[in-house]
Amino acid sequence: MKTLAAFIFPGFQTLDFFGPIEMLGGLRDKIDMTLVAETLDPVPNVNGHKILPEKTFDDSHDYDLLFIPGGDSALVAAQSKAVSDWLIKTSANAELVMTVCTGSILLATTGVLDGHKATTNKLDFIETTPLGPKVDWVKKARWIEDGKFFTSSGVSAGMDMALAAIAHLYGVEIARKMAVESEYEWHEDSTWDPFSSLAGLD
Amino acid sequence: MKTLAAFIFPGFQTLDFFGPIEMLGGLRDKIDMTLVAETLDPVPNVNGHKILPEKTFDDSHDYDLLFIPGGDSALVAAQSKAVSDWLIKTSANAELVMTVCTGSILLATTGVLDGHKATTNKLDFIETTPLGPKVDWVKKARWIEDGKFFTSSGVSAGMDMALAAIAHLYGVEIARKMAVESEYEWHEDSTWDPFSSLAGLD
Repeated sequence: MKTLAAFIFPGFQTLDFFGPIEMLGGLRDKIDMTLVAETLDPVPNVNGHKILPEKTFDDSHDYDLLFIPGGDSALVAAQSKAVSDWLIKTSANAELVMTVCTGSILLATTGVLDGHKATTNKLDFIETTPLGPKVDWVKKARWIEDGKFFTSSGVSAGMDMALAAIAHLYGVEIARKMAVESEYEWHEDSTWDPFSSLAGLD
Repeated sequence: MKTLAAFIFPGFQTLDFFGPIEMLGGLRDKIDMTLVAETLDPVPNVNGHKILPEKTFDDSHDYDLLFIPGGDSALVAAQSKAVSDWLIKTSANAELVMTVCTGSILLATTGVLDGHKATTNKLDFIETTPLGPKVDWVKKARWIEDGKFFTSSGVSAGMDMALAAIAHLYGVEIARKMAVESEYEWHEDSTWDPFSSLAGLD
């Protein structure tokens, strides 16, 4: 059984978070998920719906897997020393660190991604990637695997990345099974990314 | 501005709900969403994460749009007279009623879908559709539009259906814009359904 910390912060993007949670959360006999926030106060998503965290930063920095969603407010969260400290320590302990959309930028601002390849969402690529100047940002990728870091493009790309992480941990057949159970058409090719061209990045 | 009641019940499937909420919720100037449950107690999704409802059944039966997710526990919710009564009255008032996965079965058990075409998830199709014996169930469809009812197949199919509902209400270009902003590959063809064959329904 692996432990997973799923980080939430005020204004997190709804599907960034709950898409991967659907995929990872389906592995009930393999992954024990915990919603972690700075405090136990209800955390509103970008739509204002409130979610109850289960643990705080003070409870633990020790999880096997770390998952970080995005949202415009990820750039606000990036300015918090408490957030940054927890992400740095928890990333160091984790065997796998997953980010979606501007969650990649949030992690990059801590320095944890320095020297690594990574990707983020494409519509905000030009304006946000300078916040991680020592990261090797990839313009055209649904997701990027570099060592223990699985970073993905915008919003729905998190589902494809989460399935890739499941394939990495447990084999591709289990990932395909999770996709079929969700009636989800998994883009198994990480270089599939029509949104890069749509955003004028090539 | 249209009002939307998004119904939640204990054990609702995570992506069934939050996928369409991402798409519909992005239209902040057009749709005013409210999370409705039987009481204001936190409602756990299938992964056990707790969401705070905003209104109860007693507050209103009068919304422009009604959205119903699924999950194995939808069949438990279907046994509640309070749930059934609220769905019947709220459906009658709504101009559009959307269901995902076994949310279609939940609505069907109230009789509201009698005489209408509808679809639901494919893995449980054979065992669940007899619960709505007067519904014209369609075996191969990503989603079905019949009058004011937009019913969809399993889990991730809700996103395609929600985009179709947005196209119906506001035009296809706005739906495509919402898909691109989520970096989501919208299956615009409602007859696209590889999961029907995978489930042995043809």
